Amino acid sequence: MPALGPNEALIGVPGSRARLDTPALLIDRDALLRNIGAMAAHAKGAGVALRPHAKTHKSLRIAALQVAEGALGICCATIGEAEIMIAGGIPGVHITSPQVTPPKIARLIALNAAPHRGLSVVVDHPENVAALDDAARAAGRPLEVLVDNGAGQGRTGVAGEAELVALVHAVRAAAGLAFRGIQSYSGNLQHIATRAERRARAREQAERLGHMLRRLRGDGIAVPIVTGAGTGTYDLDPEARIFTELQVGSYVFMDVDYQRALADGRNAPPFETSLFVATAVVSVNAVGYVTTDAGLKCFATDGPAPEVARGAPPESRYAFFGDEHGKLILPPSAPRPPLGTLIECVTPHCDPTVNLHDFYHLVQGDTLVDIWPVDARGKR
Amino acid sequence: MPALGPNEALIGVPGSRARLDTPALLIDRDALLRNIGAMAAHAKGAGVALRPHAKTHKSLRIAALQVAEGALGICCATIGEAEIMIAGGIPGVHITSPQVTPPKIARLIALNAAPHRGLSVVVDHPENVAALDDAARAAGRPLEVLVDNGAGQGRTGVAGEAELVALVHAVRAAAGLAFRGIQSYSGNLQHIATRAERRARAREQAERLGHMLRRLRGDGIAVPIVTGAGTGTYDLDPEARIFTELQVGSYVFMDVDYQRALADGRNAPPFETSLFVATAVVSVNAVGYVTTDAGLKCFATDGPAPEVARGAPPESRYAFFGDEHGKLILPPSAPRPPLGTLIECVTPHCDPTVNLHDFYHLVQGDTLVDIWPVDARGKR
Repeated sequence: MPALGPNEALIGVPGSRARLDTPALLIDRDALLRNIGAMAAHAKGAGVALRPHAKTHKSLRIAALQVAEGALGICCATIGEAEIMIAGGIPGVHITSPQVTPPKIARLIALNAAPHRGLSVVVDHPENVAALDDAARAAGRPLEVLVDNGAGQGRTGVAGEAELVALVHAVRAAAGLAFRGIQSYSGNLQHIATRAERRARAREQAERLGHMLRRLRGDGIAVPIVTGAGTGTYDLDPEARIFTELQVGSYVFMDVDYQRALADGRNAPPFETSLFVATAVVSVNAVGYVTTDAGLKCFATDGPAPEVARGAPPESRYAFFGDEHGKLILPPSAPRPPLGTLIECVTPHCDPTVNLHDFYHLVQGDTLVDIWPVDARGKR
Repeated sequence: MPALGPNEALIGVPGSRARLDTPALLIDRDALLRNIGAMAAHAKGAGVALRPHAKTHKSLRIAALQVAEGALGICCATIGEAEIMIAGGIPGVHITSPQVTPPKIARLIALNAAPHRGLSVVVDHPENVAALDDAARAAGRPLEVLVDNGAGQGRTGVAGEAELVALVHAVRAAAGLAFRGIQSYSGNLQHIATRAERRARAREQAERLGHMLRRLRGDGIAVPIVTGAGTGTYDLDPEARIFTELQVGSYVFMDVDYQRALADGRNAPPFETSLFVATAVVSVNAVGYVTTDAGLKCFATDGPAPEVARGAPPESRYAFFGDEHGKLILPPSAPRPPLGTLIECVTPHCDPTVNLHDFYHLVQGDTLVDIWPVDARGKR
């Protein structure tokens, strides 16, 4: 198998988009670039920096494009993603989940000891502060740390203001750690369907966060970084003028869920769908549907169903049909797509969908123009 | 990163099971071996051969163990799995899904032209028969083919007896193809909760299939192979004395769903749970739950929730909490597991869970004893 998978020989061949070995994860290259540019312009206009989340794309090429458009760096959800990004020369890597077990701390300290252009991590517990402090001091290089605020989601992060202030003081007292700021990411707000409710809930969180920041600064504590926001609140979180940077991720691709949420209350969605899965019709013996070659191992199943984008009769619907197959349900009296027809679907939840694929197939019009590895796929 | 991932240095270290870098996919090695042995003994007793499905494990090591216990070979769902298995020296590879697009046919013919110890594929449409025949004749090596019967599921396969008989004749008339038999896999029966209903539905399908086989044999057509059955009907399908071999897969691991289904109507489940995900507690700031480091990118989400197996207070429950996190919900007044505690969960749906991981961590008692790659992960 060629290094870039079974479609490598098709790069640059006119019409190759319709001839891909399937299932294949596609990026509309121009739409991707427009999304990256649009978010960069938005951040500039809102007076806030960008450190986009690489857990969405896990790609050095996309991270480099984001940095080239002015991002300070990128966020990572796992130490494994951070290892890939730093080895690939990406600057300003911030790890958004606490790293608490001995093996994760060892990897974090090793990464911090190696050459890099910026690395930080969140903490949300005094035991973790002590463990990181010990390890960083033993390694002889200070570790940059942000304190994680639960922000109403309670997945990680401190539970309230008193705990946040105490943890900031603990970090500042740790000789091996350098306090860099606060992370406050409300993951539970990102997929709320209506813009008005997202805004109201984002304001509540911003008020609480603002109170915490005033208290810290009143105590003479500098808080250089305040990071948060996802694609669902990319324009709502900056309204409070509290965040110094945004850690938006999904805007590069958009998916069924985010397209619905971001379309609410607007004339046009602010970002384009750029990510698709191409799948071929492999069985045509049933009445009312045909079977395709993309199933549970190609699409995330935690969100809505994939949506049919092109290649099938209008109003066709996609349903899961086992590990390796999809069911393309045809509207009454629609012609049945012939065996081998390529269908393209919008992905249901982009992040875990990307994690199922080894390669992005970049398309422009009808042509496969490049293949990029999903560099950090599966990295923990 | 070492070739076998972050836990490579822990192989053979006593007590290493509790010190793994997480999240990690675990196999209880002894339980796996007992499952492989138990299915081999069952098949022998039932007078039927085994060609277990490798789409479950995607592992050369496990395929080799199955063959060593008497399996004729293994089944694959994709050409990519078959490429890995043949390159790894596994004999008797049967591909259970139709391969219809030009790139897939090209890969199939290339695989058939290379040295192998048995390769066959299903067909369910005359167009596909013609395309495979053309390609096999051009390559100068006959391709072994089974005709796929829809078997009540209708995912792939012919729709009825007339179509099946016609397709068998088409295959036999194709100079490039060698007719080997019939595949009849009722995927829709495997997860039915009650054994009585699974048996009744399996009998219905067996009666239809028996009629088809009598008609073919009455026409003087030899049908050397009749393959089907999954873990849910592993002992029910052989009752009809029609199948020559079983393509069971999940029995090697068992998962939440299959344990429930197979326990019905029995004193003890016939196979053991051998597959787990180890995950660490990474945040302990909430009341009533703690957060672990295994989420949507570690577990399949199309089935039931993962079940907590060990490491947590009794009656703890696991719920998804985003891409990289799980919520371990504690019973009232249970002690909160400390930061860094390792929890092990039974996987919800084993096949797509395995496909999210790069390595199996083999454990015996408290010790990591080996690491095996998930060789065909993501291969299409």
